[in-house]
Amino acid sequence: MEISIINGPNLNLLGKREKPIYGETSFGDYLEKLNVEFPNIRFTYFQSNVEGEIINKLHEIGFSGDGIILNAGGYTHTSVAIADAVRSIETPVVEVHVSNIFASEGFRHISLVAPAASGSIIGFGLDSYRLAILSFL
Amino acid sequence: MEISIINGPNLNLLGKREKPIYGETSFGDYLEKLNVEFPNIRFTYFQSNVEGEIINKLHEIGFSGDGIILNAGGYTHTSVAIADAVRSIETPVVEVHVSNIFASEGFRHISLVAPAASGSIIGFGLDSYRLAILSFL
Amino acid sequence: MEISIINGPNLNLLGKREKPIYGETSFGDYLEKLNVEFPNIRFTYFQSNVEGEIINKLHEIGFSGDGIILNAGGYTHTSVAIADAVRSIETPVVEVHVSNIFASEGFRHISLVAPAASGSIIGFGLDSYRLAILSFL
Amino acid sequence: MEISIINGPNLNLLGKREKPIYGETSFGDYLEKLNVEFPNIRFTYFQSNVEGEIINKLHEIGFSGDGIILNAGGYTHTSVAIADAVRSIETPVVEVHVSNIFASEGFRHISLVAPAASGSIIGFGLDSYRLAILSFL
Amino acid sequence: MEISIINGPNLNLLGKREKPIYGETSFGDYLEKLNVEFPNIRFTYFQSNVEGEIINKLHEIGFSGDGIILNAGGYTHTSVAIADAVRSIETPVVEVHVSNIFASEGFRHISLVAPAASGSIIGFGLDSYRLAILSFL
Amino acid sequence: MEISIINGPNLNLLGKREKPIYGETSFGDYLEKLNVEFPNIRFTYFQSNVEGEIINKLHEIGFSGDGIILNAGGYTHTSVAIADAVRSIETPVVEVHVSNIFASEGFRHISLVAPAASGSIIGFGLDSYRLAILSFL
Amino acid sequence: MEISIINGPNLNLLGKREKPIYGETSFGDYLEKLNVEFPNIRFTYFQSNVEGEIINKLHEIGFSGDGIILNAGGYTHTSVAIADAVRSIETPVVEVHVSNIFASEGFRHISLVAPAASGSIIGFGLDSYRLAILSFL
Amino acid sequence: MEISIINGPNLNLLGKREKPIYGETSFGDYLEKLNVEFPNIRFTYFQSNVEGEIINKLHEIGFSGDGIILNAGGYTHTSVAIADAVRSIETPVVEVHVSNIFASEGFRHISLVAPAASGSIIGFGLDSYRLAILSFL
Amino acid sequence: MEISIINGPNLNLLGKREKPIYGETSFGDYLEKLNVEFPNIRFTYFQSNVEGEIINKLHEIGFSGDGIILNAGGYTHTSVAIADAVRSIETPVVEVHVSNIFASEGFRHISLVAPAASGSIIGFGLDSYRLAILSFL
Amino acid sequence: MEISIINGPNLNLLGKREKPIYGETSFGDYLEKLNVEFPNIRFTYFQSNVEGEIINKLHEIGFSGDGIILNAGGYTHTSVAIADAVRSIETPVVEVHVSNIFASEGFRHISLVAPAASGSIIGFGLDSYRLAILSFL
Amino acid sequence: MEISIINGPNLNLLGKREKPIYGETSFGDYLEKLNVEFPNIRFTYFQSNVEGEIINKLHEIGFSGDGIILNAGGYTHTSVAIADAVRSIETPVVEVHVSNIFASEGFRHISLVAPAASGSIIGFGLDSYRLAILSFL
Amino acid sequence: MEISIINGPNLNLLGKREKPIYGETSFGDYLEKLNVEFPNIRFTYFQSNVEGEIINKLHEIGFSGDGIILNAGGYTHTSVAIADAVRSIETPVVEVHVSNIFASEGFRHISLVAPAASGSIIGFGLDSYRLAILSFL
Repeated sequence: MEISIINGPNLNLLGKREKPIYGETSFGDYLEKLNVEFPNIRFTYFQSNVEGEIINKLHEIGFSGDGIILNAGGYTHTSVAIADAVRSIETPVVEVHVSNIFASEGFRHISLVAPAASGSIIGFGLDSYRLAILSFL
Repeated sequence: MEISIINGPNLNLLGKREKPIYGETSFGDYLEKLNVEFPNIRFTYFQSNVEGEIINKLHEIGFSGDGIILNAGGYTHTSVAIADAVRSIETPVVEVHVSNIFASEGFRHISLVAPAASGSIIGFGLDSYRLAILSFL
Repeated sequence: MEISIINGPNLNLLGKREKPIYGETSFGDYLEKLNVEFPNIRFTYFQSNVEGEIINKLHEIGFSGDGIILNAGGYTHTSVAIADAVRSIETPVVEVHVSNIFASEGFRHISLVAPAASGSIIGFGLDSYRLAILSFL
Repeated sequence: MEISIINGPNLNLLGKREKPIYGETSFGDYLEKLNVEFPNIRFTYFQSNVEGEIINKLHEIGFSGDGIILNAGGYTHTSVAIADAVRSIETPVVEVHVSNIFASEGFRHISLVAPAASGSIIGFGLDSYRLAILSFL
Repeated sequence: MEISIINGPNLNLLGKREKPIYGETSFGDYLEKLNVEFPNIRFTYFQSNVEGEIINKLHEIGFSGDGIILNAGGYTHTSVAIADAVRSIETPVVEVHVSNIFASEGFRHISLVAPAASGSIIGFGLDSYRLAILSFL
Repeated sequence: MEISIINGPNLNLLGKREKPIYGETSFGDYLEKLNVEFPNIRFTYFQSNVEGEIINKLHEIGFSGDGIILNAGGYTHTSVAIADAVRSIETPVVEVHVSNIFASEGFRHISLVAPAASGSIIGFGLDSYRLAILSFL
Repeated sequence: MEISIINGPNLNLLGKREKPIYGETSFGDYLEKLNVEFPNIRFTYFQSNVEGEIINKLHEIGFSGDGIILNAGGYTHTSVAIADAVRSIETPVVEVHVSNIFASEGFRHISLVAPAASGSIIGFGLDSYRLAILSFL
Repeated sequence: MEISIINGPNLNLLGKREKPIYGETSFGDYLEKLNVEFPNIRFTYFQSNVEGEIINKLHEIGFSGDGIILNAGGYTHTSVAIADAVRSIETPVVEVHVSNIFASEGFRHISLVAPAASGSIIGFGLDSYRLAILSFL
Repeated sequence: MEISIINGPNLNLLGKREKPIYGETSFGDYLEKLNVEFPNIRFTYFQSNVEGEIINKLHEIGFSGDGIILNAGGYTHTSVAIADAVRSIETPVVEVHVSNIFASEGFRHISLVAPAASGSIIGFGLDSYRLAILSFL
Repeated sequence: MEISIINGPNLNLLGKREKPIYGETSFGDYLEKLNVEFPNIRFTYFQSNVEGEIINKLHEIGFSGDGIILNAGGYTHTSVAIADAVRSIETPVVEVHVSNIFASEGFRHISLVAPAASGSIIGFGLDSYRLAILSFL
Repeated sequence: MEISIINGPNLNLLGKREKPIYGETSFGDYLEKLNVEFPNIRFTYFQSNVEGEIINKLHEIGFSGDGIILNAGGYTHTSVAIADAVRSIETPVVEVHVSNIFASEGFRHISLVAPAASGSIIGFGLDSYRLAILSFL
Repeated sequence: MEISIINGPNLNLLGKREKPIYGETSFGDYLEKLNVEFPNIRFTYFQSNVEGEIINKLHEIGFSGDGIILNAGGYTHTSVAIADAVRSIETPVVEVHVSNIFASEGFRHISLVAPAASGSIIGFGLDSYRLAILSFL
């Protein structure tokens, strides 16, 4: 089974940035744990701060594989283009967020990606990714 | 382990109501499957169409047990009182929705419950409940 | 022929409450007149101030009978849950209002029930109910 | 008894226009049925696509007769001037709509005519006119 | 000196319509008084309930004469087209209103005509017209 | 003298819920203090988490007694129906709030009950109830 | 081939009105040029300042011919009725505007006609009409 | 006859400030002209940049004299307190503006004073004051 | 005990202004009654129509005494500066209003002062002041 | 003659993505047809999913050549930066859209690019590009 | 060189008010430091809590001197009149704020003064004033 | 001392683009002047039109150096992701703008970057950068 994880802007700083909100684990460490927990899944990981590169990656992997997990970071709230990319591809996309975006500033309450995704998992810390993986099983 | 599931208005009609959106399985049948899949969890199930009875139940179970899964149905978008109840209790509450509320009518895009919940799982059909259970494991 | 009339909050006070707006006839007296005027129709009458009980009643009668007349009172403007119940059942529902909600305070100009109903009759005093009955004939 | 029916813009195309929404009966055919059903009522019929001619007609018939049935079509949502004309005359005016305007696009949810009318009947197809007539009986 | 007065919809009912707001004098009687008070001014008077005829008249008289007094009635709040006509012509246009539109319903607080007019006189009853005439002297 | 106190949703948890905001005294203990402080007043106390039961109680006591003190909790901001009930009865109703709703989240800044109440007392902790009682003396 | 051009309010003043925005050519002169440039197309031209006459014309020509070019002028931003007429007919309608409405005042940014048209051509001066013709070839 | 003129903030700079909008005449010079043109009227003149002093003056002169002409300047758009003062007094108040506030920035389109005034005269330059005086004759 | 009462704009006209809303008692007479009713309290009274003088007074008395009662009148709805002054001082400030601001025009529904005050008492007529005093006891 | 075509995000998937809306032709195939139809025009083609690369390209080609055709895709509705780039360059830019953005979701009704472009052509399928080319001839 | 500093409401309490936000230095102490740091500049200092006195001062000094530094405090967000005064004078005005108004409550995000000022310096604590001085050098 | 300057989209065209607004100096020339004026500061300069590259650069330099000066250009008003990057790093960031964004189009009045920055300097032309440098001294 093949699952791709795409992380958007600033998520490369996980474990380093605003720790009280986002925790102290880096995504690299977390990914290793996922590999251990799900030995039968081949994970692809991609992170970019560039909106268009996220779209490129969605196009590249969006017509094969079993699932995509997308945390679009700050682009969640502003990117019609990423949401359109999700709509344009065939592989199902699950949206995840580490923090509870609904309990954050008002401009984080709206996700442009959500209506295009097949489902959303929000607010469980890094565990949101594990739950998204489980949604494909 | 003890997990309570609380379903709000019209969810008693699952399997009977608007099948193209909500599917053909009744919640009773689905609950049996959960019992089989999670033999070590003791599930409590409660459904009510009355906003205040949902609050009563949250108060009753909200200071014990390991987790509460709440699908507040139509009250999701209108009930400050249920959200306050979630804030008032101690057991963690995970919000679930069967359909993708962000792809529905505009008034369903806002969840008053979400900022009070510890996490939200939205749009996976009945599978949203299974993922919510897994979030407590 | 079977027609159910469901009245929402505060309509039990008809004839007693704000008479200049709502008139001096109680709904009980009016119902007797309807029984006389429509001897071939079997009327069921239900009134509740509890949102969820109105939903319960809609579920109970919503898969049989010939028509439902619903005056959701103040819940008209705030209840996604009642509107969802109307969408969930099969018996056609006609919305009625005694007063002209469009000539009242701004928050009464929007009916959440209306888009779910098969039709709306607004502003004819108690005569709105008679017209709703005639809509089923 | 004298009742006038005034139809606004595009209603001359009834039976010809967007049939899935508005049905296949022309208003001329429907009017004949009304004449048969209500032999004691003298109906006047007027249709115009010109906002100001509808106002002229309201002025002309608005100080005599027993009732006016007004379907202002698209002007319902934009015409302060027609609503003012309804306020300016003495014959009671009942607003009707063929389709459920509350289940249509957002700009059709607001009727400027409604607060000026004595009542509104919405969403019963052509039957809305029959119910409006019955409201005067 | 030549001054044209253009009255919009429902103003033909002045003296007959909603007397507590608009007074009991008809515009015809009032015009006679103006003729007496301003013997050196040649008045042209035009009233129409048709938005486009008001535009036609503005085009016809808008490139000659000394001034135009325009009470666009209900079109004041909805007609981009009349405002564009005022912008398109050369004769200065003064906007008048009989009642205080700012103390009326919210939708009457905005005048689309006002930004196109050279000035506005509002709320003096029929005397608004006299003041508009004096503004040209 | 007879004064009724009605508390809405989650107020049964006073002294137990979010103590930094709502304090540590339960309402039962507070009520005893009121009985001591006002020996000549007969207090009736009612608490419910069900919107419609609050309406039922308002109807039941709303045509006798000397005053009603209503803290509608979360329904304050969403219930047209409770506000209508307050409008429908004859006994004067004073609105109270323990915390300063105007310093809370934006959706708590609007009280639908306030325009229907004879007065509002907001933000004095439990002392708001004592002041409401004093308003009837 | 038959193409109809319909111009709305104030467009009869083209070449005369606000020349810096709309240019110095009258529409009559421009139409002659179109006749020369497209000798195989039979053009019908209609201009009216009356909203309802534009609707009448759309009805008249809307079930025959090869295409309609509509510049609804100021009615673009306010006329639900014209948009409904475009929806009601069968001949394809292309919307044109001489100036860039999106660079004008805010109320000109919304076109009610656009969602009903098969396409829109905006901001090319009179050349917008030529492009609209070419869209039918 | 006694008429008071009250000018609000920055109007002391008339003739000095933003001349293309407000002209080159100082109010002192203009007042002399008014004294010549209306020899039978006793004018009182007051200017202040302090909102509360304008209120003080309105209180002082608001229960005697024949009329007050108020140009509240920038306070027009922000002062509930001045509007309340106008409502509190007995002498009729006419609102004037030198420039066309409706053709200025959006925040100048709303006058809080207007609904409290007996009439408004807007956009005639300094001539607005002369017309206001004539409104009292 | 020392309590200061600060009244804002137009409250000097109490008993004289809009009597159906604000009653017929002047504040001077009312203050005498308070002196009699609360002989152990030393009252300071200050009224000003000038926003900045209210701020000056708050600064002057805001670091001593036992309590401040503030009715900011029309500034309630517009003054960030007064609200900031309340936040800047140490003596607790209770906001009062004579009339029910929530049942008045829409712009009176928002109090900028309320979130800065320790509590608000609204709608009890002059009795609001007595209740505010009692809140300090 | 030199014309550049710039396509924004997801337009590389034309012919592959959401075919009922965007058709089955790839842009490559379409471009060949344009080369045949316009042998005297040298076309440059650029597509990118990266907002900033579109800006880079606009800068690169924006001071030479005869025209730029820009379909900014999803960035149309969100990119102030691309609109600023259009404003910053000298070559005229025509905006095109394949689908009728005004008949799509609400967030697609606003184009930030449109006010900066010299004209817009919307809703003609791929034919929008041909019409844009013709606008430069 | 002559520079005037004008401070608005509550800034007289600097060093005393809400120290965690505004710091512990009084403005008097800070001014002394500025005198030392800029010995060649003659500073004038003015503070008032009265909106109109700030306007008076702006008028008084606004046609001479080299620059004005204005911190309008709470009036920043509500005073059209002060912004008009800034527009009316000739000396350049630089707006300063001690705290980051964009990170404060929503109503502090809009500055009415900013569009009238020649520049704004926001959020550097008292150092904002020093930077404003440097902007004139 | 090390200070980095980051310029966002279209700022590479400074001196070339819309000169009446942005001036005729290129940023390269300006940077040389800064090097002369501040010989003890080591400046790093980075410009990109790509949102994500600006984020990359902020991450790269955001955990060392003495200060960052950020002019996010058009991304100022739309980029949650850049604002998040500013929040994620440790080096203080000062926001600058060449033109007065508050005097520009409405969509430029809101800066998403401002609440994340330590301060903002707006509207001083290129001098804004010099003042930002001085803020670090």
